Amino acid sequence: MEDTEPDEPRLGPVLVIGAGLVGASIGCALTAAGIEVHLRDAIPSHAQVAAGLGAGSAEPVVPEQIALVIVAVPPRALAPVVSAALDEFANAVVTDVGSVKGTVLSELSARGLELRRYVGSHPMAGSHLAGPVTARADLFTDRTWVVTPHDTATPGSVATVTELAELCGASVVQMPAAEHDLAVAAVSHLPHAVSALVAAGLTEVDPAHLALAGQGVRDVTRIAGGDPALWDQILSANAPAVAAHLATLAERLEELSRRLSVRQPVTDLLEQGVAGTREIPGKHGRAATAYARIVVEIPDAPGSLARLFTDAGAAGVNVEDISIEHDPVREVGWLQMSIRPELADTFAELMGQKGWRVHLG
Amino acid sequence: MEDTEPDEPRLGPVLVIGAGLVGASIGCALTAAGIEVHLRDAIPSHAQVAAGLGAGSAEPVVPEQIALVIVAVPPRALAPVVSAALDEFANAVVTDVGSVKGTVLSELSARGLELRRYVGSHPMAGSHLAGPVTARADLFTDRTWVVTPHDTATPGSVATVTELAELCGASVVQMPAAEHDLAVAAVSHLPHAVSALVAAGLTEVDPAHLALAGQGVRDVTRIAGGDPALWDQILSANAPAVAAHLATLAERLEELSRRLSVRQPVTDLLEQGVAGTREIPGKHGRAATAYARIVVEIPDAPGSLARLFTDAGAAGVNVEDISIEHDPVREVGWLQMSIRPELADTFAELMGQKGWRVHLG
Repeated sequence: MEDTEPDEPRLGPVLVIGAGLVGASIGCALTAAGIEVHLRDAIPSHAQVAAGLGAGSAEPVVPEQIALVIVAVPPRALAPVVSAALDEFANAVVTDVGSVKGTVLSELSARGLELRRYVGSHPMAGSHLAGPVTARADLFTDRTWVVTPHDTATPGSVATVTELAELCGASVVQMPAAEHDLAVAAVSHLPHAVSALVAAGLTEVDPAHLALAGQGVRDVTRIAGGDPALWDQILSANAPAVAAHLATLAERLEELSRRLSVRQPVTDLLEQGVAGTREIPGKHGRAATAYARIVVEIPDAPGSLARLFTDAGAAGVNVEDISIEHDPVREVGWLQMSIRPELADTFAELMGQKGWRVHLG
Repeated sequence: MEDTEPDEPRLGPVLVIGAGLVGASIGCALTAAGIEVHLRDAIPSHAQVAAGLGAGSAEPVVPEQIALVIVAVPPRALAPVVSAALDEFANAVVTDVGSVKGTVLSELSARGLELRRYVGSHPMAGSHLAGPVTARADLFTDRTWVVTPHDTATPGSVATVTELAELCGASVVQMPAAEHDLAVAAVSHLPHAVSALVAAGLTEVDPAHLALAGQGVRDVTRIAGGDPALWDQILSANAPAVAAHLATLAERLEELSRRLSVRQPVTDLLEQGVAGTREIPGKHGRAATAYARIVVEIPDAPGSLARLFTDAGAAGVNVEDISIEHDPVREVGWLQMSIRPELADTFAELMGQKGWRVHLG
């Protein structure tokens, strides 16, 4: 690590329990930073695969030498594994990297454990790259890693977990466990639950009616395709926070229904929705930018997208975002490209000259 | 029109009222089919713009010569304009192309009108190309055009509206108005309302929490950015059907909340969501196909997408669908490409050889 001086105190031997994407990637990052990493998994061959990827050693450890244990197992197994680790590794700080923090803490407290050596944390890394073989040392580079101290954790334990996150290249945000859980309930768990409920409703819709479906319902229900067993554990673990957001949504839903039933305008509710979409930060953590949207018709054939992006590239314009919409019947699609507004007219003209059917959105 | 014999009875002069995208595109399609088209708009210059695009003539008409009036105005204006058209054009069949059908019909009935010459309809055309300048003759080619006959409409009126849809190149589906409204409530209006309500909730979320937002909440709330004034009219016009779907959703939401509050599993509800996503027909009206997903890391710089699609094209593989996910902090994105499963391994290998960081999803 370029910012670690040779004479700085270094993190002692680390044990990662759970060699999935997150656990193995942490192993790779720490190994690359010169830390001694050991790996353990309920399925020993998984630890060996991770070891083969440079995540550390799958050999047995000497418990009293371990300075930090990182628990990266499925949500429901977190508390028992953390508890066992506190017991087995008497000199180690223990953290977990689960996506819900309050439940683990309260389960550990309920076990009557002494929690000075436990500090929860949550690296915010992309879940679309699931599976241990996609592990990589830079998974956490410049990502947010939430550290959730609690009253009885020692400052040294918090510092060790913070050092872990920083050694992995992440930006540390400290937040109480309850606040973290409210945040992810709002920006992740509630949207997932709602998407699933809307999608569930489609099972009762006449197939002839579903033939009228456009891009909107596809977008709203995309994440509903996620793993039900995993999401059951996440929603259950964060039940109070998710329930609070569900209750607020239920109130909004009731207000909308009431207005519609007495034919009152709902414009202000919809305007609040527009305002909400603008609250979401833009890509790369910058404020959301109002990009100009260009819609280009693309034939559904090999090479069309290549030609399109080659022409777009030749125009010297950075395409900031793209989305594709298929015509449900004709063999064409429309590609919507977001570009900086001041470039839109010139870009549309250049693309039109190259024979593309272009609409400024 | 290649399927119209010279000796077939042809549709007489048509008047399009409302020269927006849909009205002007109908004008273009009918003009191309050799039909005499007249255009009228509350803002006369709009009719002239449409006329300039080949949608017909903006000159005054002789009312008794008009055989068909097509009303393509905003939802709330539909019933009064249809009513006035039935009065002004005594020899004409009148249709409207609004996205909600039952309300127009009941409003017309409530006016005590004789409705033998009125038949509602709804061409399902892409709404992302709003605005009259994007009008085109092939907007409806092979698209579904729902025709909604009612008890007092004459068979001749239904035939005339069906002929209109067919002259525009659309596939006609007949459905009672109430059934149409239930269908679009399920696949369009409910998803829009839910998206807006979830997005509205984001206005109450701490900005520090929103910084943890990923792609999921962006997808769920994308359509919430739509025009509130237009959607207020649509939701209000389809209030009973939307309210019915909102009530069903509220029940599911309550069941989810109840389960979470007593820590019961919710896996079956989430599995119903997965099942629902599979009910949505795939692109081009075909059954949904389980495509293999390949994730490629792309630098956020001009030309990256061009190089990527050029390399993908050189591999001879048709990319069936794409979506892009931005890293919220690092200056990279991931492009997820859907391709036929049997091509996935070879494709991933070829892309890897060209230096792309590829993950099989």
